[in-house]
Amino acid sequence: MIRVAIIGASGYTGAESIKIILRHSETELTYLTALPEECGAVEDVFPQFKGLCAMQIEPLDLDKLSNLADVALCCLPHKVSMGFVPNLLNAGLKVIDFSADYRLKDVAVYEKYYVKHTDTENLKHAVFGLPELFREQIKGAKLVANPGCYPTGAALAIAPLLKEDLIETDSIIVNAVTGASGAGNKPSAKFHFPNMNENLFPYGIGTHRHMPEIEQIASDVAGEKVTVLFQPHAGPFDRGILSTVYCQPKGKINNDQLIRLYNDFYAGEPFVRICSNAPAVKDVAGTNYCHVFPTFVKGKIVSFSAIDNLVKGASGQAIQNMNIIFNLAETMGLI
Amino acid sequence: MIRVAIIGASGYTGAESIKIILRHSETELTYLTALPEECGAVEDVFPQFKGLCAMQIEPLDLDKLSNLADVALCCLPHKVSMGFVPNLLNAGLKVIDFSADYRLKDVAVYEKYYVKHTDTENLKHAVFGLPELFREQIKGAKLVANPGCYPTGAALAIAPLLKEDLIETDSIIVNAVTGASGAGNKPSAKFHFPNMNENLFPYGIGTHRHMPEIEQIASDVAGEKVTVLFQPHAGPFDRGILSTVYCQPKGKINNDQLIRLYNDFYAGEPFVRICSNAPAVKDVAGTNYCHVFPTFVKGKIVSFSAIDNLVKGASGQAIQNMNIIFNLAETMGLI
Amino acid sequence: MIRVAIIGASGYTGAESIKIILRHSETELTYLTALPEECGAVEDVFPQFKGLCAMQIEPLDLDKLSNLADVALCCLPHKVSMGFVPNLLNAGLKVIDFSADYRLKDVAVYEKYYVKHTDTENLKHAVFGLPELFREQIKGAKLVANPGCYPTGAALAIAPLLKEDLIETDSIIVNAVTGASGAGNKPSAKFHFPNMNENLFPYGIGTHRHMPEIEQIASDVAGEKVTVLFQPHAGPFDRGILSTVYCQPKGKINNDQLIRLYNDFYAGEPFVRICSNAPAVKDVAGTNYCHVFPTFVKGKIVSFSAIDNLVKGASGQAIQNMNIIFNLAETMGLI
Amino acid sequence: MIRVAIIGASGYTGAESIKIILRHSETELTYLTALPEECGAVEDVFPQFKGLCAMQIEPLDLDKLSNLADVALCCLPHKVSMGFVPNLLNAGLKVIDFSADYRLKDVAVYEKYYVKHTDTENLKHAVFGLPELFREQIKGAKLVANPGCYPTGAALAIAPLLKEDLIETDSIIVNAVTGASGAGNKPSAKFHFPNMNENLFPYGIGTHRHMPEIEQIASDVAGEKVTVLFQPHAGPFDRGILSTVYCQPKGKINNDQLIRLYNDFYAGEPFVRICSNAPAVKDVAGTNYCHVFPTFVKGKIVSFSAIDNLVKGASGQAIQNMNIIFNLAETMGLI
Repeated sequence: MIRVAIIGASGYTGAESIKIILRHSETELTYLTALPEECGAVEDVFPQFKGLCAMQIEPLDLDKLSNLADVALCCLPHKVSMGFVPNLLNAGLKVIDFSADYRLKDVAVYEKYYVKHTDTENLKHAVFGLPELFREQIKGAKLVANPGCYPTGAALAIAPLLKEDLIETDSIIVNAVTGASGAGNKPSAKFHFPNMNENLFPYGIGTHRHMPEIEQIASDVAGEKVTVLFQPHAGPFDRGILSTVYCQPKGKINNDQLIRLYNDFYAGEPFVRICSNAPAVKDVAGTNYCHVFPTFVKGKIVSFSAIDNLVKGASGQAIQNMNIIFNLAETMGLI
Repeated sequence: MIRVAIIGASGYTGAESIKIILRHSETELTYLTALPEECGAVEDVFPQFKGLCAMQIEPLDLDKLSNLADVALCCLPHKVSMGFVPNLLNAGLKVIDFSADYRLKDVAVYEKYYVKHTDTENLKHAVFGLPELFREQIKGAKLVANPGCYPTGAALAIAPLLKEDLIETDSIIVNAVTGASGAGNKPSAKFHFPNMNENLFPYGIGTHRHMPEIEQIASDVAGEKVTVLFQPHAGPFDRGILSTVYCQPKGKINNDQLIRLYNDFYAGEPFVRICSNAPAVKDVAGTNYCHVFPTFVKGKIVSFSAIDNLVKGASGQAIQNMNIIFNLAETMGLI
Repeated sequence: MIRVAIIGASGYTGAESIKIILRHSETELTYLTALPEECGAVEDVFPQFKGLCAMQIEPLDLDKLSNLADVALCCLPHKVSMGFVPNLLNAGLKVIDFSADYRLKDVAVYEKYYVKHTDTENLKHAVFGLPELFREQIKGAKLVANPGCYPTGAALAIAPLLKEDLIETDSIIVNAVTGASGAGNKPSAKFHFPNMNENLFPYGIGTHRHMPEIEQIASDVAGEKVTVLFQPHAGPFDRGILSTVYCQPKGKINNDQLIRLYNDFYAGEPFVRICSNAPAVKDVAGTNYCHVFPTFVKGKIVSFSAIDNLVKGASGQAIQNMNIIFNLAETMGLI
Repeated sequence: MIRVAIIGASGYTGAESIKIILRHSETELTYLTALPEECGAVEDVFPQFKGLCAMQIEPLDLDKLSNLADVALCCLPHKVSMGFVPNLLNAGLKVIDFSADYRLKDVAVYEKYYVKHTDTENLKHAVFGLPELFREQIKGAKLVANPGCYPTGAALAIAPLLKEDLIETDSIIVNAVTGASGAGNKPSAKFHFPNMNENLFPYGIGTHRHMPEIEQIASDVAGEKVTVLFQPHAGPFDRGILSTVYCQPKGKINNDQLIRLYNDFYAGEPFVRICSNAPAVKDVAGTNYCHVFPTFVKGKIVSFSAIDNLVKGASGQAIQNMNIIFNLAETMGLI
């Protein structure tokens, strides 16, 4: 049994990770940590686990960690994570990091959108953990940067087009709507129920940190620099991201070829489904699936994707990465 | 034109009061106050009023207040309000207070559920502002204690039965569900969207402060001591309270008589509608109406009521009280 | 592997049953049926199963059924089910019936609330499938009447009190709120999104068919005739039932004894959790758990329970029953 | 007092129109019609109007209509409306038609997206009722085609850019999300609460009928042919449309000039507010306002708009048009 620690277990991605590991037949939870004020019995922090998980969430002790775990799911927030990851790696663990700290390869870009990077050494070796696009690199990784929720949905919607050089690389617009769990479990005025309910609004206009991340993935897949206009919105539902991606086809391709391209590109992928009509976030909520539907509208390609932001967009994908690293069936615990 | 000040204008009841006064033909807003950190242009604090209200919300200045207003809608929270109301009264204003500070006539009960009362003098003269039950007293009042949202719905559901001595006074159970705006605009873990959405839960079990308030109204109407078991719940919608009140009939009364009793009791009331079937909170949302439906089930009387907690349960009722005090048409601004 | 047929697989309980069986390690889906107009590939009827279930939903063919399955989950509606169940039994299958047709032992009561009963012979031998109360009888059953969603939540909330003769048997009031999936997948004006959203309303006032079912269970547990006033409401969420049950204690019992009683009564039960504070439907949504919290308020016992109406209130409980019948671990597929 | 008839009063736009007219000081409702099966007392069809409107909704009688009303708000659906409007005009009434039947000037386009047009004569004289863009023509109109909800939001978001020839006319992408009331009051599988709740999905991909309507308005404003890629989505809320419009600037314009352009273009408009940050549908819900926020992102102009689909997108705008036609204050009944 692979021993799993969750660092920062008290938030939504922590809970989702616990839930998946509890169902996973080849791994076991051995250590759960959080900030002191968020510690306590798992069943008190998350009543849904009463009787299923008798563990405590404790303040992090690195010595305990190194004895207790083979892999760490590091669910800490951006900027905080890079203060811990070096220690987790030094303790001999494989690390799957949920934050943005090891996603952006260009330190300057990271520092523009976040803060000064304090662990550029490990950043160099981190692998971007989007299995459908970078599976081979993930296999041998010690440190996986688990992708952001938006970048996951956006990248899967257009990767085949980028790979085959079928779209203008400066034409991509990603319009996305996320459910409110995407904002985390910390109460705020924007996500206070009477504000978020019956509401829908854009945010992060021109400034969202997932924009450079989407561009990095897109450029990696295309093999050339790709720019992306990314506009997120928040909607009144718990889970899910619907991405509507608009782009300008560059060569000649018809709708049948488009569908075939996507089916071929994702053939054998256990978690990508090419749909024959509009995807809906409810069809993927609570699952690790990504539903994709590409089509033509008025001469442009419009590609839709739907994921659950906490599963394929976070904890599910992390465990998919873990399965790959440890050479387990990729779907284990996830279906 | 009657000049209206709103003290504590930055919350939900402040916004609702502003909205109603803006439509009210015989009053005008002249002064809006809040805590310094919540001040600013009305259109910044509440984007929905852009172009409709050019005023500022300012820190309270009693001298300005006494020059600018005839009446204060005091939207401060419990415990805070009684620190301000004496000054508002001394400034020569009529006061309609939204807090609980002047509702409970028995100081000991107040102090059991809240804190030490610091203005028992004004408490003696305060009138309980539920127009359908205490209209005559409201007419000449200087200080009206605007009722709580739950007590409004619960009392209107059973007042006819209490008045006519038709139910056992120790048999009353009020089961109520409120929309989330009832918790106010301050973000909290319970009312964070991802917790409140897709949820329903009881709270204040055995301890809710509206229990003694309901008992006081019920006892006043009945002319004898009435006890009430009140159990509130919170549900995933913005506005509305549905109260389901169970009680044991004491004399002989059939269903036709029951309906007739309610229709007679509320005859001429502009804001109470006796329904012929199940009321729904959506039918009253955004209005000052209370929908009531009494019936018999298995030998017990079950009386349902629906109100909007922010209108009939707060700001609408306050302005209904203001209309009564100033001898205006009671429905002005409210239809 | 036990071979499972689902009769009437195209609705919500069908989908939920498919989902659970797909995760169940000792059973396999072998036959899915529905009305002709609702047939088709599972992945077309339920996009969430694309790639997970390659089966077709077909019109029922009894010969195929008898060859293909060991047990039938019969998800047909009330009144329809009893036209099929005799054939399913004759085909040699164990049957777990989701409808009300085999729940009410008193034919006269059934016929008052539903229609003329056409299969009273099998009714005699049907076992009421609430494992926490009737596990021994379920073990050897050929035909299990899977309980209604409301009766499940209500009965588990008060069974210990009834068993120990601690409450007045004519004092019980069950106030319950269900999520909208409880109304099934057929579009209707009441459950049209713009009506149900931001709404909450009572229904089935004095007439709901689960009232006699709750009374039957309560009487069976108490060993004497129990009457229950049951009032359901519908709220704007997908899943869950919160039951708030009020009753009059008859003997002397204090709060500590009450808690101990519940903990003892449900000791070892895998799906009942006694909570130490207010349960919330979101804590049980998507699970087979029932959260129960009993307490005293103003001299009455108030017991709260929360279940997922489609899981513990339908498909989960059916599979719990199936596990019991086939001597499998009771939690298999359900955790 | 101007006498108003509502033809097709039993739906959402009928209810919203009734609500507004009841508050309108210079008009009165004199005649309400619907299909026979949807007729009845207003207070039975719409419980929220109990005590406010004692009228009946009746089957249409043209003789009565011509005697009773000066203006008809024709809330009939597409294709049906053009069978009635000639009679309404012949009866001497001004007509404000909510359907698409008189919106598209090019009969061929109409017939491509709808059906054969049977009243091309009146179509020629119909005025497109978007006051902010076509106020002068509306003033003298006998027949106003009230705009679609999506076209209203989309057109107001980009009209200043089109008017000033600042964007590439083949670059416009309108990504919009509507609340579920946009689908009308007829129950359907898509808008059944358990499907629509916790969901978000695109629909009408490449085929939505508002696409040519948006193109027509855009072309009229620009004075040249404009093409638009329009992609609608449905989200889990009652009211509101958020439009996110992407377009390629063609000349040189900076952000300050952009903001100034919008402020100048809409100066004096009572119902358009230029925001300084992201608009939210909740800020306009229940109002006739359109909130607009234009900005630059990555070299493209992104312009957001928010409206209430039933008010500015339907009934409110109709009454705004009515006010213009009858030379009343344009905001009457709407603030």
